[in-house]
Amino acid sequence: MAQPPSPASGSEPLTYQQAGVDYARIDPLKILAQQAAAATAPNLARHGLAEVAASRGESAYVVDCGEFYLASITECLGTKALVADQMRAITGRSYYDRIAQDTLAMAINDIITVGATPVSVHAYWATGGSDWFDDEARARDLVAGWRSACDACGVAWGGGETPALAGVVAEGRIDLAASCVGIVRPKSRLTLGEKLAPGDAIVLLASSGIHANGVSLARKLAERIGSGYGAELEDGTLYGDALLAPTTLYSPVTEALAAAGIVPHYSANITGHGWRKLMRHLGSFTYRIHTLPTVPPVLRFIEKQAGIDKREAYGSLNMGAGFALYVDRADAKRVVEIAASLGVRASIAGEVEAGARRVVIEPLGLTFAADELHVRA
Amino acid sequence: MAQPPSPASGSEPLTYQQAGVDYARIDPLKILAQQAAAATAPNLARHGLAEVAASRGESAYVVDCGEFYLASITECLGTKALVADQMRAITGRSYYDRIAQDTLAMAINDIITVGATPVSVHAYWATGGSDWFDDEARARDLVAGWRSACDACGVAWGGGETPALAGVVAEGRIDLAASCVGIVRPKSRLTLGEKLAPGDAIVLLASSGIHANGVSLARKLAERIGSGYGAELEDGTLYGDALLAPTTLYSPVTEALAAAGIVPHYSANITGHGWRKLMRHLGSFTYRIHTLPTVPPVLRFIEKQAGIDKREAYGSLNMGAGFALYVDRADAKRVVEIAASLGVRASIAGEVEAGARRVVIEPLGLTFAADELHVRA
Repeated sequence: MAQPPSPASGSEPLTYQQAGVDYARIDPLKILAQQAAAATAPNLARHGLAEVAASRGESAYVVDCGEFYLASITECLGTKALVADQMRAITGRSYYDRIAQDTLAMAINDIITVGATPVSVHAYWATGGSDWFDDEARARDLVAGWRSACDACGVAWGGGETPALAGVVAEGRIDLAASCVGIVRPKSRLTLGEKLAPGDAIVLLASSGIHANGVSLARKLAERIGSGYGAELEDGTLYGDALLAPTTLYSPVTEALAAAGIVPHYSANITGHGWRKLMRHLGSFTYRIHTLPTVPPVLRFIEKQAGIDKREAYGSLNMGAGFALYVDRADAKRVVEIAASLGVRASIAGEVEAGARRVVIEPLGLTFAADELHVRA
Repeated sequence: MAQPPSPASGSEPLTYQQAGVDYARIDPLKILAQQAAAATAPNLARHGLAEVAASRGESAYVVDCGEFYLASITECLGTKALVADQMRAITGRSYYDRIAQDTLAMAINDIITVGATPVSVHAYWATGGSDWFDDEARARDLVAGWRSACDACGVAWGGGETPALAGVVAEGRIDLAASCVGIVRPKSRLTLGEKLAPGDAIVLLASSGIHANGVSLARKLAERIGSGYGAELEDGTLYGDALLAPTTLYSPVTEALAAAGIVPHYSANITGHGWRKLMRHLGSFTYRIHTLPTVPPVLRFIEKQAGIDKREAYGSLNMGAGFALYVDRADAKRVVEIAASLGVRASIAGEVEAGARRVVIEPLGLTFAADELHVRA
């Protein structure tokens, strides 16, 4: 089944819009929703609580509960399960254990950015019909993968929903999401960026592959190359198999840092918008990268076969960096060591400088300006 | 457009299985997932926390955080938005303000059953494509309805997800869910049923209509009667309009009870399985109902047109009772008054007795036995 991919040379490069994701269309509603959401904050006063306003627009919402902060998040997997569905025909594996980890990682890797310890999660598994569960091997993989990701992150799986939604979810498909609740305790662990400062080191934690970001592009590419998901990467792995490497869970690292007394000044989960997310914080800082992490073979493959340039690649994919920690430069080496001790490759990749808000990737001669990232109203 | 419905006489009664919901198929996976979820509880010890084991299988998951309990939940709307989509063609209204309230009510009305004050919510709005948001009126209604339901419940809208999931969510559709975090404070507000006792009064809070439970059946019925959603009920309302009455939000009532110093001994949100949910608690109690609440016209219509008997109607629909409070009989009258003062009709409908676990609806001569309700592993 595995064949070398048909080269994409001569054809147009793939863009996100061609891949079916049109951010321009979603954004007005998103902004409207963000404004309406922000307007509900005063409701918390009825209960003697208050929101941490700086968390609006960050990756998780934070409420001040007096003794500690409460963080919460709901995150969607996206379309990655469609890759698993197609790969099953090629290899016979369900891959839903990996898909489960991907889904949980979306929530876990976001909630830890604010300094929270993830406490409990809920599963949202909406299918196109009850018959989705007739495939017992797949259902068991989904459950087993979900549980093992919970165990890896030390969270309790509190419950969830498994609705059959014919007419809403596409036939034969599953819409996967996860919600997570966390606590920030002691409150000094809160990392919303107040301490971010020039001179801080940027430590990048390695990704395992595409994670769950850029999958629409990856799927479109599979349609375009002759051998599809059966294409072989340079190391002999099937394209589809490599795409389905489960997303790295970073909470063991952030928990170990806390245990070692290291509180990052800021954190960013590198998902949509790729490395542009490195300037997620609104402060006037330049994020100068001097050392690039190794790019996973599957991302090199996509870059080459889709014919996208470095700007598009680093501006939309993780390119080997799944999570960014901004730490006191004196702590940087220990952060790398702690991550490595947990099996997560890490590198001191750059530093924070005073200056215009932008990301400068020196080895590539690339700069992303502030106006190239829009994640808040 | 409005016409009297074609009578369903002579045709077979509609069942849930015909309406596309096959609980038998979902349950094995659900049980597997519940067991795996329960096995993750020890993870909380790593963070100095512990789950409240009695909350497993209840409507919200509860974690003991020392100073207070933390409750969390993720809930799906189901297929009710499909009714709104079809009604738009008839009346030109989007109805998504109501749909937003329905979605939030699924989470809010569940989380309050454990005694929690809902604190923050996240929205999950997954569409079949970015073009869903091109309909600005509908998008604005969704946002406005979500905000107004948050305000009504005193919760902060923390954020959410608006993914475009072509190939996962059906084209032109939206998959709606809500997650909610709440706190139980003081801890004496926890209502997992330890205090439930013979002699307690059962107070039923009125529903506004079908809420979001039984919608598959209601949709199937619309296909079967000639005038569909345009059929007129006895009071002249269109069937579709009546179906889209937004779900009552019960948290103002439970918060007012707490403020008045009344802690229910138990609570049940009457959703799937209808009145069988009255015996949700696992204790050996007989729930004897002596007084029936008024049945909303839309539920009377469904009962009659679908040709279902009282057992099927009360065993699957709310039949006028959206929420049940089990309270000290000495408090029952005040509970009714407090609910009424907030615009929620309530009645002392029955009482808890020692005896086999079952629901006895005396005015109908109906009994639901314990083995007719399976909501836990």
